[in-house]
Amino acid sequence: MAQEQQLEVVNNGRTERTGWLLNSPDPPGFFHEIFSSIRRTILPHGTKNHSSLPKKSSASKAFSFLQGLFPILEWGRNYRATKFKRDLMAGLTLASLCIPQSIGYANLAKLDPQYGLYTSVVPPFIYAFMGSSREIAIGPVAVVSLLLSSLIQKVVDPAVDPVGYRRLVFTATFFTGAFQAVFGLFRLGFLVDFLSHATVVGFMGGAAIVIGLQQLKGLLGISHFTTKTDVISVLKAVFNSLRHQWYPLNFVLGCSFLIFILITRFIGRRNRKLFWLPAIAPLVSVILSTLFVYLTKADKHGINIVKHFKGGLNPSSVHELQFNSTHVAEAAKIGIICAVIALTEAIAVGRSFASVKGYHLDGNKEMVAMGFMNIIGSLTSCYVATGSFSRTAVNFSAGCETVVSNIVMATTVLVSLLLFTKLLYYTPLAILASIILSALPGLIDINEAYNIWKVDKLDFIVCVGAFLGVLFRSVETGLLVAVVISFVKVIVSSIRPSTEVLGRVPGTSTFSNVIQYPMATKIPGLLIIRINSGSLCFANANSIRERILRLLGDENEENSKDNIRVLVLDISNVMGIDTSAIIALEELHRELVSRGIELAFASPKWQVMSKLKLAKFVDKVGRGRFFLNVEDAVDVFFDPNMSASAVHNC
Amino acid sequence: MAQEQQLEVVNNGRTERTGWLLNSPDPPGFFHEIFSSIRRTILPHGTKNHSSLPKKSSASKAFSFLQGLFPILEWGRNYRATKFKRDLMAGLTLASLCIPQSIGYANLAKLDPQYGLYTSVVPPFIYAFMGSSREIAIGPVAVVSLLLSSLIQKVVDPAVDPVGYRRLVFTATFFTGAFQAVFGLFRLGFLVDFLSHATVVGFMGGAAIVIGLQQLKGLLGISHFTTKTDVISVLKAVFNSLRHQWYPLNFVLGCSFLIFILITRFIGRRNRKLFWLPAIAPLVSVILSTLFVYLTKADKHGINIVKHFKGGLNPSSVHELQFNSTHVAEAAKIGIICAVIALTEAIAVGRSFASVKGYHLDGNKEMVAMGFMNIIGSLTSCYVATGSFSRTAVNFSAGCETVVSNIVMATTVLVSLLLFTKLLYYTPLAILASIILSALPGLIDINEAYNIWKVDKLDFIVCVGAFLGVLFRSVETGLLVAVVISFVKVIVSSIRPSTEVLGRVPGTSTFSNVIQYPMATKIPGLLIIRINSGSLCFANANSIRERILRLLGDENEENSKDNIRVLVLDISNVMGIDTSAIIALEELHRELVSRGIELAFASPKWQVMSKLKLAKFVDKVGRGRFFLNVEDAVDVFFDPNMSASAVHNC
Repeated sequence: MAQEQQLEVVNNGRTERTGWLLNSPDPPGFFHEIFSSIRRTILPHGTKNHSSLPKKSSASKAFSFLQGLFPILEWGRNYRATKFKRDLMAGLTLASLCIPQSIGYANLAKLDPQYGLYTSVVPPFIYAFMGSSREIAIGPVAVVSLLLSSLIQKVVDPAVDPVGYRRLVFTATFFTGAFQAVFGLFRLGFLVDFLSHATVVGFMGGAAIVIGLQQLKGLLGISHFTTKTDVISVLKAVFNSLRHQWYPLNFVLGCSFLIFILITRFIGRRNRKLFWLPAIAPLVSVILSTLFVYLTKADKHGINIVKHFKGGLNPSSVHELQFNSTHVAEAAKIGIICAVIALTEAIAVGRSFASVKGYHLDGNKEMVAMGFMNIIGSLTSCYVATGSFSRTAVNFSAGCETVVSNIVMATTVLVSLLLFTKLLYYTPLAILASIILSALPGLIDINEAYNIWKVDKLDFIVCVGAFLGVLFRSVETGLLVAVVISFVKVIVSSIRPSTEVLGRVPGTSTFSNVIQYPMATKIPGLLIIRINSGSLCFANANSIRERILRLLGDENEENSKDNIRVLVLDISNVMGIDTSAIIALEELHRELVSRGIELAFASPKWQVMSKLKLAKFVDKVGRGRFFLNVEDAVDVFFDPNMSASAVHNC
Repeated sequence: MAQEQQLEVVNNGRTERTGWLLNSPDPPGFFHEIFSSIRRTILPHGTKNHSSLPKKSSASKAFSFLQGLFPILEWGRNYRATKFKRDLMAGLTLASLCIPQSIGYANLAKLDPQYGLYTSVVPPFIYAFMGSSREIAIGPVAVVSLLLSSLIQKVVDPAVDPVGYRRLVFTATFFTGAFQAVFGLFRLGFLVDFLSHATVVGFMGGAAIVIGLQQLKGLLGISHFTTKTDVISVLKAVFNSLRHQWYPLNFVLGCSFLIFILITRFIGRRNRKLFWLPAIAPLVSVILSTLFVYLTKADKHGINIVKHFKGGLNPSSVHELQFNSTHVAEAAKIGIICAVIALTEAIAVGRSFASVKGYHLDGNKEMVAMGFMNIIGSLTSCYVATGSFSRTAVNFSAGCETVVSNIVMATTVLVSLLLFTKLLYYTPLAILASIILSALPGLIDINEAYNIWKVDKLDFIVCVGAFLGVLFRSVETGLLVAVVISFVKVIVSSIRPSTEVLGRVPGTSTFSNVIQYPMATKIPGLLIIRINSGSLCFANANSIRERILRLLGDENEENSKDNIRVLVLDISNVMGIDTSAIIALEELHRELVSRGIELAFASPKWQVMSKLKLAKFVDKVGRGRFFLNVEDAVDVFFDPNMSASAVHNC
């Protein structure tokens, strides 16, 4: 009697739970979801609780707004001389690496050398006021320089029309900044996420090889070179030149200093205290090689030198921006590609060092800072600047405390621009090539590529796609290939029809895959199948229906004594369902009815339940056939007598 | 003491379960998955259990193989005269509808009328031997005729080069059949699923309107018409003609018979016994109007008539197929589009009537049958045939028993071709137009469009996209738009970052969304978040990480007394994870460690667990932080003392 009462209580609880499931409030509607998603994207978070905070005066509100925009106002008040001492040292080390690299990257971007230095002056200053990373080193970087030159020389040839080329570079830089600022202001940071980790690893590796091949021009002293960036064109151009004319002296000079730089790096790695040695090695190389050329007059013997080098403060380039030319659409297109690539590199760099020091970097704020620094850069003769991985690492090792090290660096570069540019007239191009070459190995991450292969084969295909695309076609093809493969991967993995047969895990009310957990036991007379596709839709619903019927057939064949009476479908993983899928479920239901098998659903998600109700599917199947969890469904349909006979049969 | 022992048992059970989770066998590897998926696709299912069945002799094996290919061998043995009587009646009714429709559709396909009749002879015969549907009526259909003419007249203009046009039609028909057979043989039936229910509804509606507009040519007796199919071009052409020359008599004649056909249909709907009335109405209209024109010599007064009409048996068209012309690639492209559209219509028709009669239709077998019937059709002067919705419905209402009704129909059409074609010389084109017009309302399903809107707003966008694309651009644009939107929808719904806070549902060990189930209670000190994205990947992992941190902040703000000590992530819904997502989880873990919050994972899926192990993430977080279900995690981390204080505070 007491047992019966208890049974009734249990049954009542179950009925009540099915009621909760069926009568749960409506999920947010389609339009509400869209609006709230837009609001959540555009407006900063945490707004809903602001009213509960004590009201601030409008002055302090304005100040906190300014603090948000210019983080320097916050940390600047606690800035002490001890910190400055460390920042000064870091900034000077940074400058000694930055000057030769900037000249080299300007060369890679097919601009005169001073534009690289300009780009190391204004953007770091702006970033110091607006940015929130403490370690990042701002300036021109290899990949963006390559990207810019490879994209822009398709529109304007720098050899034919250098002024038009430069104007397009500044216009593209302006668009880069504008897009970055817009991404940040409208909180569209997720766009940067579209370049997955695997894409970045593959892309960087490919770009490093392409950049290295471009350096063969300087290293071999070749005058006629190709404007294409793919391996085959470049190697062809190199072999053609080698047959006609090249100057081995350039190669000897470049290689000797490359070896010197690599040796200092090896020493720096062995002895952490000598970290400054690899950092100043490029500058030392530049000085030594320039002196060598000047003293031996080697430029008369085929050594190519920098020559024209205009010093002085960044000139204004406001009048060079062209918004009504025919190329403005091209500039905007190039701008958006550069914006995404530059942000990807900067945010990856910033985040990894921030997490080492244990603080959080707000991606959207960073984007606004980068955007403004590039907009202002484009008005002051700078091309696209971003966070450099190699220099940020040097800045970090040199013990920087705040972004003041960037200010020190920019000031040093500015002083050099004002005073020392004449001295760089005799700097050999081969040295610039070897400085760039020495920075490349850091971009190729074979270990990480191996890890990707180990963990996710499809991700590895994305990585290889980006790598080969950059190598054999062009920079933007590589990116496109990787992004397309990434999204195809998302589609395939979402619509892949996947089902698993569940059994009860001993000692729990959890039902799990019987192959993964061999100790899980099936319930006699019941077949419990979980649909493992996030979206049950037109593309997979029919396959899943057929697979379920097949599993049912297999089960009945294997276990011919205990025929399956009930099919419990665990749809907990189905997050979305469309009208095609509902039709497939209706067909499944009819099919099962014609075979005399009952159909029950367990753990439907909120949105799915709501759609099934709207489509009247719940009424067709029967409201009592929907359960909050698998256990409730099993309790209702499991017949202990049958189980006893089953056990007996075993 | 007993309690302590019990606690120990419970703890041991949990530890054991975590062990099961961590040490579960490796899931099938990437390559194994690929191969088994290909095998499963290409080979028929159920092969694994064949060995357990009693061995068959090779003769009986061959016979069962033939039975699989030609289902007629199976049901033919039980075929009785009573069945034939019903099939004969159904076949004759079908023929009376089929003859005028075939002539009209040939007109729509811009072929001479006899080709429509040819297409109603050979394909139904072939299908009768190979197909397994009992109700489907095979022959030319409106949508495929439109599709074929609109695609082919872009390559060859039928007004300029009718022979070249016809050759391309046959070649495209051959490719259609070849693709259909390949889809069936390699079990690629899922390709047809790529046209979702919403796409088909929108596409059919748009195509019906386009077909209707094409009929204005015949109905108004216009001689100069556009070859484009979009609404705007057609309406422009019609208005231009109306200003210059048209013959109102055509319109009057066409409309009178259209009204006649519609009235018979209305009567047929009211009284089910008179179903034959609407079925023979078109033939009656043709006979009456032909007589009318012949007697009144109305063709001299501007009534356009069929005129040239070659009778006789289907001639061979083997020599008309062109595989080495310049248009062969076009023909193959058109073939694949027609193959998918024709199969979509046929399988939708076949399935819905099969499920009414309670038998299952094997999609792959149907595709093979359709493929062969079109290949053989292309050799015997037929264009693409498929299952017609309107005629299948008539066949069903006429009480057909088997596919023999198709044989009866084909024979009747053949007899007409041999004897009566001369009589159709005076048939007015306006009547053919009104017969096609009368069949169109069945293609426009406003109710279903409304249902789609109600259930799934995004599906409705797909439907509208297909509709407007067909209407305002072209047939293939409509399909392309719908398929692209469908897949974008899959991407968006899979990567949409979605999380929910869970609480324990009273009386169960289930944890559910606290907003959907207001009765679910949160656990003090614990925050349980479920990730509701099927794939945790590059595109959403960072957003989800930020969302989790925000939820954590909100929770701590709301409930400042009980600070969250543990974050339990329920990743049961995450079916796939990539390297970018693992990096995001590592960042989340570091972030939480720096705030002093513990991180635990509940119910990871097999594949996900395996990847987390491979990426060494399990070791970083700690092997004891992974649980088989949420309940185990809560049991470990929940501190009852704290709960008591929390209850006290409430």
